[in-house]
Amino acid sequence: MLAMRAQRALSEELLREVHGEFEAGLQAFFARHQERYAYGEWVESLYLDVSEYVARKGKRIRPMLLLGAHGLFAGDGDYAAAPAMRAAIGLELLHTFILIHDDVIDRSERRRGLPTFHKHVEARLGSRAGRERVGQSIALVVGDVVFALAIECVANAGCPEDRRGAVLSQFLALTTETGCGEIQEIALGLRDISRVSANEIRHMYTLKTTRYTVEGPLVLGAMLAGASQEAVQAIRQFAEPVGLAFQISNDLQEFRHFEVSDPMFQSDLLEGKKTLLVREAFERLNECDRSFLQLCLDSPSLGEPSIHKVGELIRKSGAEAVLEEEMRRLFDEARMALDTPALTPEQREGLLFLKDHVRSQASL
Amino acid sequence: MLAMRAQRALSEELLREVHGEFEAGLQAFFARHQERYAYGEWVESLYLDVSEYVARKGKRIRPMLLLGAHGLFAGDGDYAAAPAMRAAIGLELLHTFILIHDDVIDRSERRRGLPTFHKHVEARLGSRAGRERVGQSIALVVGDVVFALAIECVANAGCPEDRRGAVLSQFLALTTETGCGEIQEIALGLRDISRVSANEIRHMYTLKTTRYTVEGPLVLGAMLAGASQEAVQAIRQFAEPVGLAFQISNDLQEFRHFEVSDPMFQSDLLEGKKTLLVREAFERLNECDRSFLQLCLDSPSLGEPSIHKVGELIRKSGAEAVLEEEMRRLFDEARMALDTPALTPEQREGLLFLKDHVRSQASL
Repeated sequence: MLAMRAQRALSEELLREVHGEFEAGLQAFFARHQERYAYGEWVESLYLDVSEYVARKGKRIRPMLLLGAHGLFAGDGDYAAAPAMRAAIGLELLHTFILIHDDVIDRSERRRGLPTFHKHVEARLGSRAGRERVGQSIALVVGDVVFALAIECVANAGCPEDRRGAVLSQFLALTTETGCGEIQEIALGLRDISRVSANEIRHMYTLKTTRYTVEGPLVLGAMLAGASQEAVQAIRQFAEPVGLAFQISNDLQEFRHFEVSDPMFQSDLLEGKKTLLVREAFERLNECDRSFLQLCLDSPSLGEPSIHKVGELIRKSGAEAVLEEEMRRLFDEARMALDTPALTPEQREGLLFLKDHVRSQASL
Repeated sequence: MLAMRAQRALSEELLREVHGEFEAGLQAFFARHQERYAYGEWVESLYLDVSEYVARKGKRIRPMLLLGAHGLFAGDGDYAAAPAMRAAIGLELLHTFILIHDDVIDRSERRRGLPTFHKHVEARLGSRAGRERVGQSIALVVGDVVFALAIECVANAGCPEDRRGAVLSQFLALTTETGCGEIQEIALGLRDISRVSANEIRHMYTLKTTRYTVEGPLVLGAMLAGASQEAVQAIRQFAEPVGLAFQISNDLQEFRHFEVSDPMFQSDLLEGKKTLLVREAFERLNECDRSFLQLCLDSPSLGEPSIHKVGELIRKSGAEAVLEEEMRRLFDEARMALDTPALTPEQREGLLFLKDHVRSQASL
């Protein structure tokens, strides 16, 4: 199978194949480690819960970027080599840990069409008093254990000795940066929109989205494949505008979903988060509309009429067109970052293909 | 300084010196990494908060066990070698992360005589609505970042290549086992005392206390120093009964504190936790007293008269004497585990000294 794939250029068909191998690898991973968690009833069933939670249909954006980049830089064009596969599983486990904790923080009820982890644990407790807090507590500790498992996966990926330290450091840096981005998001959420600059939001996006979802996975894949430092640097310069553009695209999509008022859709807007779209709209509105927007963002729960008015104001401000223009500019910038002798033409093509692949997914 | 210490046997004076170097190393660590967290107002001040939180006067049981064991097994008797010091800092950061999360889970207000981390963040938010949840959310993410920092510390401790992987694996195993122990503790807390066996409690203690507080630190120190597999195995067999005895001693001390009703003292008993002491008392009481104990443990918040009655029942049951006898037996068992040619007489003496050192501390 490996030989057949040698030198094959990246294509949707190839990515589907690699995706299939990734899902199989993920299942095998959980089956292999099961006996380590034979610590009694609860731990055992929580382990099965985690394996089912991870197996829920996800887009696997991060592992696919890692595996794609690895294949582009490994000389043999092997898109599913064992060390890369293990690191990709580690990345998905990291994502799992972050989702479990985020859902506790946001008290979310649904994730990937099913109950969130803490709600799932809570349901197990029947009608017992205090079950809500017990569910949250267990979910927190489970998240911590999954984080440790993720690191173990990367540390034991079996990649060549000369790059082992750098790969693990990159993985840990990605984790701390994502955490700092989450803290910045909470901090910006506490401030009035007039006191949050567009650059602060961009910086928060860089930490929270670019490093975590685009740069980290691509760089890890390339590093594992032994890419040169110059190539890794080029990937970072490519990933920076791509990540920002993805987050802006996500904001715009969320806004449009919210516009058609899909009841299943959790909107950042409804949570009063400071997105670039809201900031841009605020910038362009007159004083009266600004005050209204400020008031709405500051209210913990908006009523339907206010929500509609906020949507109307954002549309009227012309902020959407401004951000679409910014997105185009960012994608151009990304394309230019690839124009370096550190990359082969196939690698440039491949990275652009991966970017379009992610862009074609509904949301991050 | 290193030369002066060569071949010196472990003593309280030597441990005080090593403790001093550890505190200095911890401060230097935070100063050195400060600029990495120049991500804006909130992240920067939270970084300082973490460094102050870590600097709070603690007993440093785990780092001291690691450094002590390292000194015993490093040929040169160097108790403060750089790789061991970095791993010891990593262990204290791991402890910090666990304390921050535990306090959120238990909604505790005080830690080491000062506000818990989430309460500290909450206080910063003044009278803002929802500050309690924001404080908890930020504390959770900060805990996650500190966990990543802890692992980075151990991964980059600079220990010889031949033991690097094993040291990191041991550190991660210690983390997942502690998490599983915490989950077991919550799970046992949900069951009626009549349906919790003493062995289940002992197993939970092994995961939650032995591995985390005794075995993990000693084994990490010995591994870093290049101890033989046989020596590491002997340490594990020594640590198993020691850890269990420590937890029993802790239970007894908590009970006696609770008896003199120190208002600052958070008692497991008040939280309805299933300790070996409660289980042993239950075993030895008559049916009527058992029902009363069951009822009390099941009530979310006990009134003063009930608390006194529970104390009286435990005293009357004779459970304390039984557990003190078990402690003595466990310490004998530990001493016998050291009787192996894998250890030198100095190493045996040193390990017993470390055990007594920890035992002389007030509580874990």
